[in-house]
Amino acid sequence: MAEQEPEGRAAARPLLTDLYQATMALGYWRAGRAQDLAEFELFFRHCPFGGAFALAAGLRDCVRFLRTFHLRDADVQFLASVLPPDTDPAFFEHLRAIDCSGVTVRALPEGSLAFPGVPLLQVSGPLLVVQLLETPLLCLVSYASLIATNAARLRLIAGPKKRLLEMGLRRAQGPDGGLTASTYSYLGGFDCSSNVLAGQLRGVPVAGTLAHSFVTSFSGTEVPPDPMLAPAAGQGPRVDLATLVEAWLERVCAHLGLGVQEPHPGERAAFVAYALAFPRAFQGLLDTYSVRRSGLPNFLAVALALGELGYRAVGVRLDSGDLLQQAQEIRGLFRTTAAQFQAPWLQSVPIAVSNNIDEEELARLAQEGSEVDVVGIGTSVVTCPRQPSLGCVYKLVSVGGQPRMKLTEDPEKQTLPGSKAAFRLLGPDGTLLLDVLQLAEEPPPRAGQELRVWPRGAREPCTVQPAQVEQLLQLWVQQGQLCEPLPSLAESRAFAQLGLSRLGPDHRRLEQPAPYQVALSEKLQALLHRLSAGAPQ
Amino acid sequence: MAEQEPEGRAAARPLLTDLYQATMALGYWRAGRAQDLAEFELFFRHCPFGGAFALAAGLRDCVRFLRTFHLRDADVQFLASVLPPDTDPAFFEHLRAIDCSGVTVRALPEGSLAFPGVPLLQVSGPLLVVQLLETPLLCLVSYASLIATNAARLRLIAGPKKRLLEMGLRRAQGPDGGLTASTYSYLGGFDCSSNVLAGQLRGVPVAGTLAHSFVTSFSGTEVPPDPMLAPAAGQGPRVDLATLVEAWLERVCAHLGLGVQEPHPGERAAFVAYALAFPRAFQGLLDTYSVRRSGLPNFLAVALALGELGYRAVGVRLDSGDLLQQAQEIRGLFRTTAAQFQAPWLQSVPIAVSNNIDEEELARLAQEGSEVDVVGIGTSVVTCPRQPSLGCVYKLVSVGGQPRMKLTEDPEKQTLPGSKAAFRLLGPDGTLLLDVLQLAEEPPPRAGQELRVWPRGAREPCTVQPAQVEQLLQLWVQQGQLCEPLPSLAESRAFAQLGLSRLGPDHRRLEQPAPYQVALSEKLQALLHRLSAGAPQ
Repeated sequence: MAEQEPEGRAAARPLLTDLYQATMALGYWRAGRAQDLAEFELFFRHCPFGGAFALAAGLRDCVRFLRTFHLRDADVQFLASVLPPDTDPAFFEHLRAIDCSGVTVRALPEGSLAFPGVPLLQVSGPLLVVQLLETPLLCLVSYASLIATNAARLRLIAGPKKRLLEMGLRRAQGPDGGLTASTYSYLGGFDCSSNVLAGQLRGVPVAGTLAHSFVTSFSGTEVPPDPMLAPAAGQGPRVDLATLVEAWLERVCAHLGLGVQEPHPGERAAFVAYALAFPRAFQGLLDTYSVRRSGLPNFLAVALALGELGYRAVGVRLDSGDLLQQAQEIRGLFRTTAAQFQAPWLQSVPIAVSNNIDEEELARLAQEGSEVDVVGIGTSVVTCPRQPSLGCVYKLVSVGGQPRMKLTEDPEKQTLPGSKAAFRLLGPDGTLLLDVLQLAEEPPPRAGQELRVWPRGAREPCTVQPAQVEQLLQLWVQQGQLCEPLPSLAESRAFAQLGLSRLGPDHRRLEQPAPYQVALSEKLQALLHRLSAGAPQ
Repeated sequence: MAEQEPEGRAAARPLLTDLYQATMALGYWRAGRAQDLAEFELFFRHCPFGGAFALAAGLRDCVRFLRTFHLRDADVQFLASVLPPDTDPAFFEHLRAIDCSGVTVRALPEGSLAFPGVPLLQVSGPLLVVQLLETPLLCLVSYASLIATNAARLRLIAGPKKRLLEMGLRRAQGPDGGLTASTYSYLGGFDCSSNVLAGQLRGVPVAGTLAHSFVTSFSGTEVPPDPMLAPAAGQGPRVDLATLVEAWLERVCAHLGLGVQEPHPGERAAFVAYALAFPRAFQGLLDTYSVRRSGLPNFLAVALALGELGYRAVGVRLDSGDLLQQAQEIRGLFRTTAAQFQAPWLQSVPIAVSNNIDEEELARLAQEGSEVDVVGIGTSVVTCPRQPSLGCVYKLVSVGGQPRMKLTEDPEKQTLPGSKAAFRLLGPDGTLLLDVLQLAEEPPPRAGQELRVWPRGAREPCTVQPAQVEQLLQLWVQQGQLCEPLPSLAESRAFAQLGLSRLGPDHRRLEQPAPYQVALSEKLQALLHRLSAGAPQ
């Protein structure tokens, strides 16, 4: 089912780019350099959210984009309308003919741990084409990686057992922002999303309950066309659920010390309607009127009536107030009610919570002894308010086999020249030691062999002896052809969790972590030194 | 050209919704209430960014979405796969048949000033259908309105004369986030966008310069296939531009007191290549190596060589360092160089700046005497880091003609019941006094007549005597039919600026503004009081 509808991503197409890519394309073409072989690297300079890691994501979208990259007549005509009127028509003929058949992409697999300066993507091919790819690739990778990282942080906070539901579609930057958010928060460690389209197009598990409008739409005077429900086992006569619920309400109110008039009849009618539609998946949203005086007794009456027919309610949701405290109280009332009415299944009905939950609130909800089972997070996973942009860049590192770098007077913005390889060095217990960037032509580091490298920012080299060495950048697209199938989203999700488990706790810590080292080989360091010293040439 | 390619928005479709909309749809259907006439209001509770206003935007996208709303077979099949397997097949037949032919929409025109609690959209129609619309409408309105508001703030800071370029596509939440950002930052007051697709699909003016990769791709040893350029007037022999530039470089370096070897030859080759492609639109990106020792002299040499041929350079861009200070220095050097070489046009070459510009930095760049002409803003306009979500909600206000409200124990989350009309009251000088919400059946306020209203949150009513009264909510879609053409994006942009000019300076102020009052009619206040007191019923 996943991936069957590529038009869902129609907005990612060649003109989804900054105009300067097109003006530069004309400049390259006019200079006779359109076909020069160039290599760009896509990377970030700082880990997001003050953490020490990021997750790489978005490769699948990039590959899909590259494979269909082609300027249609209407696209070329539009470019002609915004470029100088005396532009040589042969340039537009050139644009009509380009595609990614000359483009090669190496990349970190989806869900890999990524660190500053290590390329997420290496893109090589004809200069004009790989320049045009800059903006769309940045757009497809930056946010995907940001939200995957954000989701991974939330998963680390929640621990492995809490169920995390992404529900931020309405807070996203338009339709595709929502689809991207749902897809990559799942990759980063969420369990499911409310976004149906993410289920249909990407295979993300979807989940949902009910909203307050469903509850407020009932006044209690409505007459259901068919209030009858058969027992779960299918045997025995059908029962009028509404009537059965009223009988249970009296017992529940007596148990809770409430007047039978207190629970809102409209809310109860809504719960009965939902139960008739979902007898095997009944859930209650408790806070439309008053949790303790209305939502909870109404839920219990319906759940116990269903229970009498052999059905088990699957959850309650709270969307306001002190979520942790209410969850504790509700669990307590579930237990006493379960005991009172010999309904042991009621004790463990999952409690879901939502309402602007951020990292701090999630930590509170995930504390030892918390009775919260499911946490729905919208705004703070989708918008990444602590840092709403990853700030990836796409920099030229070589042309015609010659290394290139941006020097600038801002050392922060200097780039690392040359076509590179990247390796991850691991200790004997499998934990990550550091990542090494080196020139592509250098032999790879070898397990068990001592290596002298220059940690970035350090004034001295250091030596390291890895027990294992992993090559980081895999060849995915060669001359426009996909070299091997991309892993599924679920596989990438598992890969991300595996990576995180191998990261030392000092680096995995979310607040003030120890930075994970990225080092340069001696040859790369020497090239950097030579090109920096030589400027301006 | 604009709007010709609706597939650019293909991601906004019926399944772009939260699963609970579908589960509630089944609940309504099972309860025999699918066709009940319901009305929802879409509004926000707090103005974003600590300001006192927002701009309403996204209506055009909503109308487009509603007009094509239809569940395809594959959509219904997917829903069937995630709803209970024993769901009555007649429900899915119902889903296959629905569309928005029964839906009516009133809304603030695009670009209107919007305030807390005043509906941006009123949506009425069959309960099941208008419930399903919740998530997509929120998704289409919330971010569009947020970014339009953000852009309007940046425009207020910049003043009317600075040219504002949106260039945040690479920092957006995927392709459509970028398209939405470019479209609605233009509506909010930006002049143009770097996003080519926004130009093609939405008619947003596009602009762009060149990137550092273009500069670093040249080493200076390249031989252009055709370095010859004809004079601008078209008469006279073609000239070797590269040679002419070298001659100018000597004169420029002598004037600036630089050695002729200092400016980077690759950067100069890049500028020459760009000038050959864009003789009438030459721009220089100055900070790839060193602004003063390389970028500036190289730019001046090319600009003066072009000037000799009758062409005028159109700009320079700075992307690092102290942008204001560099702009002042560059303007000074433009002036002395213009005088030195009798090239007065050089004095006023526009200076563009970019590099993580936020509200504070923009205020600095826009100060009296600043020589900055163009400001490119990416991350901070697109991601709205001060508040990355507007938090719009979509709440049921009536069913079957009966008012509905969510009471809850959190007063913040209470809703205003009933089908309403909204009016803006103006003083004799045309400035805005306050907005009034009243029940739909009440007669509208009349100019010159005193009115008693309840400002929200106040314990006492107040009286107001408007000189003018404007109806806020216009009928756009009636029973699925568009009632009048939507204004163009440029018209909405002008409308937004007009609205802001009528807002009192106390409310327009960006930091700690006076809140703009929204008041309830006495009848609406009484209904609210009655329903609040009556709960739980």
